[in-house]
Amino acid sequence: MDWSRITRPTLLLDEQRCRANIARMCNRASAARVALRPHLKTAQSRIVAAWLREHGVRAITTSSLGMARYFAEDGWDDITLAFPFNPREIDALNAFPEHSRVQLLVEHEDVVRWLATQLRRPVDLWLKIDTGLGRTGIEWHDDDAIAACVRAARASHNPRLRGLLTHAGMTYAASSPDDIIRMFSLSLDRIAGAAARHTDGERLLVSVGDTPGCTWAQSFRGADELRPGNFVFHDCMQLQLGVCAVEHIAVALAAPIVALHARRGEVVVHGGAIHLSKDALTRGDGAPMYGLVCLPEERGWSAPVEGAYVRGMSQEHGILRLPEQVLRSLHPGDPLLILPVHSCLTAQAMRGYRTLDGNPVDHYAAVAEI
Amino acid sequence: MDWSRITRPTLLLDEQRCRANIARMCNRASAARVALRPHLKTAQSRIVAAWLREHGVRAITTSSLGMARYFAEDGWDDITLAFPFNPREIDALNAFPEHSRVQLLVEHEDVVRWLATQLRRPVDLWLKIDTGLGRTGIEWHDDDAIAACVRAARASHNPRLRGLLTHAGMTYAASSPDDIIRMFSLSLDRIAGAAARHTDGERLLVSVGDTPGCTWAQSFRGADELRPGNFVFHDCMQLQLGVCAVEHIAVALAAPIVALHARRGEVVVHGGAIHLSKDALTRGDGAPMYGLVCLPEERGWSAPVEGAYVRGMSQEHGILRLPEQVLRSLHPGDPLLILPVHSCLTAQAMRGYRTLDGNPVDHYAAVAEI
Repeated sequence: MDWSRITRPTLLLDEQRCRANIARMCNRASAARVALRPHLKTAQSRIVAAWLREHGVRAITTSSLGMARYFAEDGWDDITLAFPFNPREIDALNAFPEHSRVQLLVEHEDVVRWLATQLRRPVDLWLKIDTGLGRTGIEWHDDDAIAACVRAARASHNPRLRGLLTHAGMTYAASSPDDIIRMFSLSLDRIAGAAARHTDGERLLVSVGDTPGCTWAQSFRGADELRPGNFVFHDCMQLQLGVCAVEHIAVALAAPIVALHARRGEVVVHGGAIHLSKDALTRGDGAPMYGLVCLPEERGWSAPVEGAYVRGMSQEHGILRLPEQVLRSLHPGDPLLILPVHSCLTAQAMRGYRTLDGNPVDHYAAVAEI
Repeated sequence: MDWSRITRPTLLLDEQRCRANIARMCNRASAARVALRPHLKTAQSRIVAAWLREHGVRAITTSSLGMARYFAEDGWDDITLAFPFNPREIDALNAFPEHSRVQLLVEHEDVVRWLATQLRRPVDLWLKIDTGLGRTGIEWHDDDAIAACVRAARASHNPRLRGLLTHAGMTYAASSPDDIIRMFSLSLDRIAGAAARHTDGERLLVSVGDTPGCTWAQSFRGADELRPGNFVFHDCMQLQLGVCAVEHIAVALAAPIVALHARRGEVVVHGGAIHLSKDALTRGDGAPMYGLVCLPEERGWSAPVEGAYVRGMSQEHGILRLPEQVLRSLHPGDPLLILPVHSCLTAQAMRGYRTLDGNPVDHYAAVAEI
């Protein structure tokens, strides 16, 4: 790694770590004989997607229609848009690259019926099920609403109903791996139960997935596919949850020091909210923590500096607490590495990466329509 | 406003409100006979900068060298980069458009001396002074450090020392306008005192500024220039501080509804952390609040819906609490308007605007180097 090239905030991607993360999740899914449809909202990158393809991945998930098109135009032909369909995007949907199969989420029978009158291309449908997160979806026990959607979908040839889909995001509030296992398993039982109750001839498939659950679950019985996303990079949030080790975190923001304040035990870097995002974890003392701090090394970055963390952020400033002996060895301009709290948002904010060899890696946000 | 054009998250800019905000601040500065050098990190827009120029503004502030270049290439020729200079950007600084005067911030004598050996273009210098915020700068009472920087600068012809500069960001923690006035005034006294103590022949100028202080201060005595930024748009944070009225907020995120959950009193929109940013205010009940919710109107947006707010956000989802009678009138696809908590970060995330007439307005982030 040529650290003299780092002149401004730069998001570094450790390709080896990322490829190892991909191999680990792919092996897990294949050992469990369940399909893997990774959520690409984390990396949003054609290059990272190609690393997934090397492991046999052929189907992907995105969180917007624009992101789906970005991958469709790169040859991906089986894409689930895992976000409740926005009717205002019907024209963009009908104009979607023909070669690619598109799967949509709905959660109301009216939208199912409306789609049947509007679609000018084949579309597969998943009913979004809320298994306890309370964000989107039909509640898993609301059999009337599920049945109404199933009936509406079965009444037309297009869209074609595939099954039920959920995101057990509750696992992000888990207090231990056992807690993750329990939450994921409860969510899977709930959706698999609903799918069994509403299967009428053609079996309703079950799609689940979140990185904590897919990492720790002891059984995927009842699930047909997994849609984890964050696992390609991991971050401080996954680390705190016990979902990854610190050496699995595959991205770090390189941020040059602009001010040293030895008396306060702090340095200020060029690298703030517009680079890292404002997602924070809460420290034991109740204060927010916006990232862990590492030092540059010949082949990437060090383990996090003991006692060091990002204690504050403004638009372009990051304020880092550092132990005195580390601080004394630093100079203005030196890059420090910050492991992000939430790598999806950091990647989105940075809109691109550099590998440790200095090669650029794409991100959809760099070309997304404004 | 043609609301049928809103098909995905779109940042709307009410030009009339923005121009009125600009007029108000310009009039305030000119009544106080103090120079105004607005901070363009909020709008980051050449079009909005042109509205400032119509009011006689000729000097501006930016928070990065790239942003400074964006404006220099649009004809601005007096730019303060209000961020401690990053030595790694020396080549980019030396290659900066020649026609434009550049003013830098430093806070250590070593950097002053180093600049004197590296500069290949004229550069003006400001010493960054910390008047109590505790982010960057020499502490206002650290006369040894200030004197060392002044000496180092006076020893060379280039860079040329202009004065002392501070940002009284403490005002963002104020509990009332009186509190803002007190904090701003204390900060101004501190920096003006330091400037007086260290003036040796050529007078040291004093540059201050933050939107709350510049809006409420009763006197700018001792200040030579003001650098507020957020005032062009305002946001929920300024509203909570008592710095603006709700009808001064000039930007709103239009976000289409994708899910209605009447039983929970919530709707989910396409418009989340990657659109609004994750900056939050804390409600009376201790819960975070990510924005206020307005309804579309023929000429812009309504006043905030009583009792409505953004209660949660994930990467692309916004979860909005709404009163039942409003919720019952809404449909999937309908746009809602969200007044951002922190307009600088929302504008950065969206990288562009539409006026209420549908015209595009530029943002630097759309073309910034990745």
